Amino acid sequence: MILLNGKKTSDLIKEEISQEVLDIIKNGDRPPHLAAILVGDNPASLTYVSAKVKACDKVGFQSSLIKLHHDVSEEDLISHVDNLNKNVDIDGFIVQLPLPNHINEKKILEKISPHKDVDGFHPINFGKMCLDIPCFIPATPFGIVELLRRYNLDLDGKNCVVLGRSHIVGTPISILLSKNKKIGNCTVTLAHSKTKNIKHICNNADIIISAIGKPNFITEDMVKDGVVIVDVGINRVKSNKTKSGWKLVGDVDFENVSNKCSYITPVPGGVGPMTIVSLLKNTLLAKKNVFS
Amino acid sequence: MILLNGKKTSDLIKEEISQEVLDIIKNGDRPPHLAAILVGDNPASLTYVSAKVKACDKVGFQSSLIKLHHDVSEEDLISHVDNLNKNVDIDGFIVQLPLPNHINEKKILEKISPHKDVDGFHPINFGKMCLDIPCFIPATPFGIVELLRRYNLDLDGKNCVVLGRSHIVGTPISILLSKNKKIGNCTVTLAHSKTKNIKHICNNADIIISAIGKPNFITEDMVKDGVVIVDVGINRVKSNKTKSGWKLVGDVDFENVSNKCSYITPVPGGVGPMTIVSLLKNTLLAKKNVFS
Repeated sequence: MILLNGKKTSDLIKEEISQEVLDIIKNGDRPPHLAAILVGDNPASLTYVSAKVKACDKVGFQSSLIKLHHDVSEEDLISHVDNLNKNVDIDGFIVQLPLPNHINEKKILEKISPHKDVDGFHPINFGKMCLDIPCFIPATPFGIVELLRRYNLDLDGKNCVVLGRSHIVGTPISILLSKNKKIGNCTVTLAHSKTKNIKHICNNADIIISAIGKPNFITEDMVKDGVVIVDVGINRVKSNKTKSGWKLVGDVDFENVSNKCSYITPVPGGVGPMTIVSLLKNTLLAKKNVFS
Repeated sequence: MILLNGKKTSDLIKEEISQEVLDIIKNGDRPPHLAAILVGDNPASLTYVSAKVKACDKVGFQSSLIKLHHDVSEEDLISHVDNLNKNVDIDGFIVQLPLPNHINEKKILEKISPHKDVDGFHPINFGKMCLDIPCFIPATPFGIVELLRRYNLDLDGKNCVVLGRSHIVGTPISILLSKNKKIGNCTVTLAHSKTKNIKHICNNADIIISAIGKPNFITEDMVKDGVVIVDVGINRVKSNKTKSGWKLVGDVDFENVSNKCSYITPVPGGVGPMTIVSLLKNTLLAKKNVFS
């Protein structure tokens, strides 16, 4: 079994990005600049945004964090988005999800300039991704593709099962891996809450991408020998082995399943760091105006 | 075996549209107006465009056909697109595909105003479709969904195999049928030219949507009893039973496969007429500014 080490791979990519930043500065330009809007004080969102800001520091990007009260009106949030759209010193920005219930998430995402949409959630970027037009790819699927590429996996004609049909992970990765590309050309099955015979479906899979958020969902009896598993789940479970009393695990019963795998991502240290570094990559692409 | 009769169903929908047109006119407004740009003289394209114009007549729509020489420059074609975008008497228009090789098809499709994009090929409409935001759905997948809806098929949790990953049919129908909707909630597998063990995959399918354009590709031994088949293929094959010496067939060996089906679309008279009527529906939606 080989670990698909997202931490190590993302560190390598960060070094590559740092080098590009140095080159940009050497050419007399300013470094890439990522902004994030955070609404409210959801602790998970705070953790994610902090990790993104920290990653910016690491590679020499500028970053700005705009914290808004959870009561902020949709109108005010939109005016913040408009300001970032217009600000020529900001290359890309994200609005950290989820947003409070009184705000229409889809409406906000459509207000982000597609040229600064480094999360790739604007419909025009999503559509371009589907239609093979160069664009920002959402960070998690982008990170998964990059991880598989760096480990030089041969996916051609392989049966891939994606568990979970979210707009952020399941749906886009299912689309990407079915494309006629080197990291692609899989026969992809998209499974979800209404799927029957999920055990049978997983047992036939050469590759499983799990993004459902249920600890220990994938068990030993569900996978075949030699399977490749990408575990996107980040679940907080109780633990008597940590000081805090809890730990992070994925969707896979790692202890018992990993022996059967040819490759598997750990949690933490797998998809998580690849997601963050992909956001940095998108910000670098935005700075370089690659899709304009 | 029950025929999924696209001809009959589309006639019914045409009557519904005609009634809406009469209501629009009764309210003092003009009827919906569809325009089509046809470049060159590809006989198949001519046939398709003529069928669309004829369908407009049938339901009381206005229609305009703009024929351009196959040598038309990309620039000139774009200026025609711009004119239609600006023309307030045109509700929606299509650029008939394929375009000659010297023209960048994706570039042209991106020039069409998303509000008049009744083919649903603009990236922003494609992205909205993926993200469950109301928009124009490409006519063929829209027609397939409508046909399944009118026959009241229960798709929930069914295994669906889509053959072919084109942007026009395979990819969008695979996305639509995996959504959490009444005509949806399938576990969809998207198969294509790189797929191995296609017979095994089809044998496990409750529903097969074939859009690969190979006559007699789906044979009796590939499907299980009670399968639902939607045959999108339109293939011209030699025949000694017709005056012209050729006939149209789908991707399915209809004679031998249909006995095993619970439902199947004929070719012709299945998906074809549903595609055309879906274009009319999109034009009516454009006229009513439903997505503005």
